[in-house]
Amino acid sequence: MDHLWTNARLATMAENGLGLIERGAVAASGGRIVFAGPMEEAPAPAGDSDVTDCGGRLVTPGLIDCHTHLVHGGSRANEWAMRLEGASYEEIARAGGGILSTMRATRAASEEALTDAALPRLDALIAEGVTTVEIKSGYGLSTEDELKMLRAARALADRRDVRIETTFLGAHALPPEFANRRDAYVDLVCNEMIPAAAGHASAVDAFCEGIGFSPADCERVFRAARDHGLSVKLHAEQLSALSGSALAARHGALSADHLEHASEGDVREMAAAGTVAVLLPGAYYFMRETQAPPVAALRRHGARIALATDCNPGTSPTTSLLLMLNMGATLFGLTVEEALRGVTVNAAAALGLADRVGTLQAGKVCDLAIWDVEDPSELVYRIGFNPLHLRIRNGGAPC
Amino acid sequence: MDHLWTNARLATMAENGLGLIERGAVAASGGRIVFAGPMEEAPAPAGDSDVTDCGGRLVTPGLIDCHTHLVHGGSRANEWAMRLEGASYEEIARAGGGILSTMRATRAASEEALTDAALPRLDALIAEGVTTVEIKSGYGLSTEDELKMLRAARALADRRDVRIETTFLGAHALPPEFANRRDAYVDLVCNEMIPAAAGHASAVDAFCEGIGFSPADCERVFRAARDHGLSVKLHAEQLSALSGSALAARHGALSADHLEHASEGDVREMAAAGTVAVLLPGAYYFMRETQAPPVAALRRHGARIALATDCNPGTSPTTSLLLMLNMGATLFGLTVEEALRGVTVNAAAALGLADRVGTLQAGKVCDLAIWDVEDPSELVYRIGFNPLHLRIRNGGAPC
Ligand SMILES: [Zn+2]
Ligand SMILES: [Zn+2]
Repeated sequence: MDHLWTNARLATMAENGLGLIERGAVAASGGRIVFAGPMEEAPAPAGDSDVTDCGGRLVTPGLIDCHTHLVHGGSRANEWAMRLEGASYEEIARAGGGILSTMRATRAASEEALTDAALPRLDALIAEGVTTVEIKSGYGLSTEDELKMLRAARALADRRDVRIETTFLGAHALPPEFANRRDAYVDLVCNEMIPAAAGHASAVDAFCEGIGFSPADCERVFRAARDHGLSVKLHAEQLSALSGSALAARHGALSADHLEHASEGDVREMAAAGTVAVLLPGAYYFMRETQAPPVAALRRHGARIALATDCNPGTSPTTSLLLMLNMGATLFGLTVEEALRGVTVNAAAALGLADRVGTLQAGKVCDLAIWDVEDPSELVYRIGFNPLHLRIRNGGAPC
Repeated sequence: MDHLWTNARLATMAENGLGLIERGAVAASGGRIVFAGPMEEAPAPAGDSDVTDCGGRLVTPGLIDCHTHLVHGGSRANEWAMRLEGASYEEIARAGGGILSTMRATRAASEEALTDAALPRLDALIAEGVTTVEIKSGYGLSTEDELKMLRAARALADRRDVRIETTFLGAHALPPEFANRRDAYVDLVCNEMIPAAAGHASAVDAFCEGIGFSPADCERVFRAARDHGLSVKLHAEQLSALSGSALAARHGALSADHLEHASEGDVREMAAAGTVAVLLPGAYYFMRETQAPPVAALRRHGARIALATDCNPGTSPTTSLLLMLNMGATLFGLTVEEALRGVTVNAAAALGLADRVGTLQAGKVCDLAIWDVEDPSELVYRIGFNPLHLRIRNGGAPC
């Protein structure tokens, strides 16, 4: 053992609920948790172990943001300001706005510039105790530019002490050079981009919507992903009900994300397949949606629920995972327990990392967040307040 | 001149709009602004002046949070967690929840303990470039405990470099010892509390609601305030339409706050009287209200609009004024300009400080916020992101 944290209130997230242990301790060796439990059962520290008294503070697993578009060029603040002034979508499109403006800015940026631009956003997450961040491509929309985004995302792990999981999202939007040739673009995604992305991403995602890609398109993407040994996930049921989430479940997807319009049948298939329901209240809030995801059905069928920022310039310009806890509770009615499991154990499952992070259990990576709060509920209740006391990555081991 | 900031993009908030000056400078002497305008017109610095190159960054007036209940005992996180689990208001009341739980915790706390408890909340505001904070009493509900709250609030200015404005809010709720004796409590507020509070607060506020105090009660409070030389303001039209805001306007109130249910007639009277409309989107969001304040009518009549956190443990547990900018725009449809004027020049007017703070103009106190943003719209657009580069209080003079 090289590190021991004592006198902590643990929220282990093991099993169900928060897994609270009132007077607890965590021991780590080589970056891994070797013990998490009641203080009196903790192993005695070796002579050269670092021992930290947590002063009774709450200790949770390091938080996990399992759905972001953190890497992108440009800003859409001005286009949003125009909308507030009453500009129509047509006027904004004429002024060069919309997702294609992010595509143009992303294509124009170098890999280094993309990494640099993402750093302040990543730092905001890290400041809230986030230790694992998923980042999607999807604004390059050419093989070269998608790979550039994935490399820029992975390069963030060289700049900050954080675990980065990358997801290839070539089927995010149709680039203008493929206008009216969606099949040809899906061919490119499946036959060229996915093989090229295989070394740079651990999962493949797609945007399954009436205004995006059809279930049949997404099925082709899933097959190509499987052929290259990649996990799959899906943006599904955000704006329309295409049962993309059920399709994703049938393909063994790690997660289906958004889900405002998911049906009871979709939820049943997700729960049966173990596909995590990733809810994204930031986008729901920012887009002023009124139909909330089917939380009651998710509970009824025992589906796992995660929460993420969906950080992106068009529909969720947020970098606060703590605020998503509050929005998940305030806007979607999640309980404190559901919200906190949603950014730890269930977020880990949404990334296929359930065996490595997300709980305080022996064998897991020792990623911790130590909080200045009296009660876990305060992490969800407070709005725009960051009570992080300390963030430990990988047991505090040098890296 | 003892300080000069050059190479800045100024948002002066003078006159209308943002008052943008692209290559601007601000000069200060003895804590006051002596120049704010184009760089080439700036006075030459004296030999011993500090000169700071802002690197082209945006400089706004220090932000002003003009409506908070920052000083209070206890937390209501647990009661909220119960509500998320499905507990009814009755069950929560039986478990000791609600505003009276905050009253009990506030009464039980010492003045010092109240100041200490408010510090992390104040620090969160300060970290976002806030330089002026209004703080109300209203959880003591006895002469002694109300004065303790006001002293605790003013003591914050000894602990941090910030301007604190205190408001006496004895008519916030009926304390249990006055159950069914509202008239007697209003007597106490008017005849004992307001005279005693006169040296500790600059304004008097009340909670005008069906579940609070009637317009007739509030009118008595206003008269007592005037008799003791205090300004008035009012919590009005949050839950019911009693035309408290029009009443406040007729009494020359600095502001009427909340206003979800204000009528066109109320708005007309407010605009005519110069009573600032303080909108509180945090409470609207947290309470899941559906009727937004009458922004179109406020515009039509030329009423001044401010935004504030309403930081309080029961209905708006937020400490992010930047988030209120976004919520003002996203939930109430304010423009970027309206939102930013709402936490600067109009917030100053809501506190009767229009001659001292809230704009970058010669003669004002030199409170500045310097931001790492490309465009002012980013301050409103981003959610849960703090781009503050530097906060200057009182010209950076020692204090
Ligand atoms: Zn997304
Ligand atoms: Zn209030």
